[in-house]
Amino acid sequence: MPAKTEIQIIDEGHAIAIALPNGTKQRFHAVWLRDNAWDETTRAPGNSQRLITLGDIPVDTRISAAEFEAGMLHLTFQPENRTIIYDPNWLAGHGYDGNQSKASGWTAPDIKTWDAGLNASIPIGDFGAVSRSQEALRDWLYGVRRYGFGKLTGGPVESGALFKVAELFGYIRETNYGKHFEVRTEVNPSNLAYTGLGLQAHTDNPYRDPVPTLQILYCLENSAQGGENMVVDGFRAAERLREENPRGFELLTRYCANFEYSGSAGVCLRSRRPMIELAPDGELVGIRFNNRSTAAITDVPYEDMADYYAAYRRLGEIIDDTSMEVTFKLAPGESFIVDNTRVLHARKGYSGAGSRWLQGCYADKDGLLSTLSAIELQDRKAA
Amino acid sequence: MPAKTEIQIIDEGHAIAIALPNGTKQRFHAVWLRDNAWDETTRAPGNSQRLITLGDIPVDTRISAAEFEAGMLHLTFQPENRTIIYDPNWLAGHGYDGNQSKASGWTAPDIKTWDAGLNASIPIGDFGAVSRSQEALRDWLYGVRRYGFGKLTGGPVESGALFKVAELFGYIRETNYGKHFEVRTEVNPSNLAYTGLGLQAHTDNPYRDPVPTLQILYCLENSAQGGENMVVDGFRAAERLREENPRGFELLTRYCANFEYSGSAGVCLRSRRPMIELAPDGELVGIRFNNRSTAAITDVPYEDMADYYAAYRRLGEIIDDTSMEVTFKLAPGESFIVDNTRVLHARKGYSGAGSRWLQGCYADKDGLLSTLSAIELQDRKAA
Repeated sequence: MPAKTEIQIIDEGHAIAIALPNGTKQRFHAVWLRDNAWDETTRAPGNSQRLITLGDIPVDTRISAAEFEAGMLHLTFQPENRTIIYDPNWLAGHGYDGNQSKASGWTAPDIKTWDAGLNASIPIGDFGAVSRSQEALRDWLYGVRRYGFGKLTGGPVESGALFKVAELFGYIRETNYGKHFEVRTEVNPSNLAYTGLGLQAHTDNPYRDPVPTLQILYCLENSAQGGENMVVDGFRAAERLREENPRGFELLTRYCANFEYSGSAGVCLRSRRPMIELAPDGELVGIRFNNRSTAAITDVPYEDMADYYAAYRRLGEIIDDTSMEVTFKLAPGESFIVDNTRVLHARKGYSGAGSRWLQGCYADKDGLLSTLSAIELQDRKAA
Repeated sequence: MPAKTEIQIIDEGHAIAIALPNGTKQRFHAVWLRDNAWDETTRAPGNSQRLITLGDIPVDTRISAAEFEAGMLHLTFQPENRTIIYDPNWLAGHGYDGNQSKASGWTAPDIKTWDAGLNASIPIGDFGAVSRSQEALRDWLYGVRRYGFGKLTGGPVESGALFKVAELFGYIRETNYGKHFEVRTEVNPSNLAYTGLGLQAHTDNPYRDPVPTLQILYCLENSAQGGENMVVDGFRAAERLREENPRGFELLTRYCANFEYSGSAGVCLRSRRPMIELAPDGELVGIRFNNRSTAAITDVPYEDMADYYAAYRRLGEIIDDTSMEVTFKLAPGESFIVDNTRVLHARKGYSGAGSRWLQGCYADKDGLLSTLSAIELQDRKAA
């Protein structure tokens, strides 16, 4: 237990400096501490939602007393004259003093970028196991979060089975393509996906905002020649571009591209977003890459357009590089899921005797990540 | 028709300079022109999707000849040695030469920010009219795109009627709250929305990524005291903050906040996004503001946290300022829709005799904007 001397009230009570259980010494502002109180008048018991607004906290909130009692930190706030108790372990996990800015294009700690080397260890789950066992489901979802895709084997060979995959973790996103769509050769196709053409690796629906963040493709028939599926980690591709050509990377993050689809009656979808999307602090958060639906790019000034196009071309070359691709041919009852904000998917052309029939649907990552986080939280509590 | 002398091949054929029908003179790069060709080998007839990738276009693409014939621009590309025809009016609408960078926080031309002055002219539609008439639907959707919200009156007073509103333009987004949710007082509520408490103006589900971009709230009973709905334009609030305190505005755009909800079993939703979201070129594209679900903010360095909190507080004060709010009390059969990436909604507390029962659901903007754009496109073609 830290001694009382390990807390100092600083800046006239507007902050404290404290030695934390993780061995760091950090400063916290009084207003931040007051806003993040967990007492019953600040947070609703049961659902933990905050009951007060920032406006309910006095502007000149200061700390007048700070001490440890039984391992917990007791802070007294003025002018409210209230003492609130904090867990130093919670503070150790939520410190913000000494944050270092990160390199543009950093990725979150729970993801790992990959290339063709992953062919030997594709994240894979068994449909029956993940349906029955929370542990198997957790392991499979963990792989999807980490690698941005995952395969599922041993599922039923029946139309609509893809919905059962979505139900494992969340909810489908219905669009103008329906609750699901049939991926097989059509006459007069509304989308080139419904032909036998090979498709360059792409993310789906970049012309939609928000894009569907997950896609499930489920195989029902696959006896045609060709038609293998490929996936490419768009984040790794962006990292490679950044290493080779930092200015090109920066151009693809700084300027918005345009995307458009209006292949069916009553549909006119357009978006204006960058091909490589960063959070404001440089985290790599999204890839939009789709040759079929990229519209005229008009937000790049003339002076930067040649370099922008060179970077766009190079990103495509990296994506097409076979050293980047993980390839598999789905058997009936097999499916895969991709994080459509990160992982590109492709298919090789197919033709000849036999048939190829996949069903696809969109879903969203919030449900998947929530399901995984809730299982992980439960595991930690049980541990 | 421009004379031939009004086209110049420049930069050794890597670009042209051209006098356009709109009176401007603009340069276009050869590779950009080739990529944006509309001939049948570049774009699929019918669905207009691009058939080629950038890799199919030679690296050293140059223009060897440029001339007008019958008002159309004929460009010959090398080394392909192909002549492709361009409409100068299309080029006039897609020029990128002379783009000016805009001030941080600019808004798209098809939206208009507002404050309480809009109370006199709330965008409103009649349920029957918008269901029957494409023109009435267009006008109502136009208001929703422009102002980020719209009211609908005269709808059926029956459970599930809110789905009929969503069907006017798109698709609902199912979440852990269901396809829809009941907004009325509950015992042991999983969310404070299901109590009689007043709620500060907020955007919904900032802890979800992507957030639901639209919300529909549909009234079935409203005889309780109070319970009025309010909406506030978050974009206008951000503009006010920027005018008063440019540094505070910048801090709320530059650093991510954290949001969290884990009020029900199996649900643990978290996101890390800024309260004021800009596109990389400074366009204001999103507001996330919700006192109930804001988690500890840990991505702001100690040195900036006090100013960040001051800006967060001031943004809340602006949002709470009655000069910003549009208020109405829904009658049974009335509903409203908000762009949840922009417009905050609130409700006043309610109690006493009588009842209040709303149903809510989420949907997405892509469908709404697509439906509106498709009608507008049809109107232009018919004109």
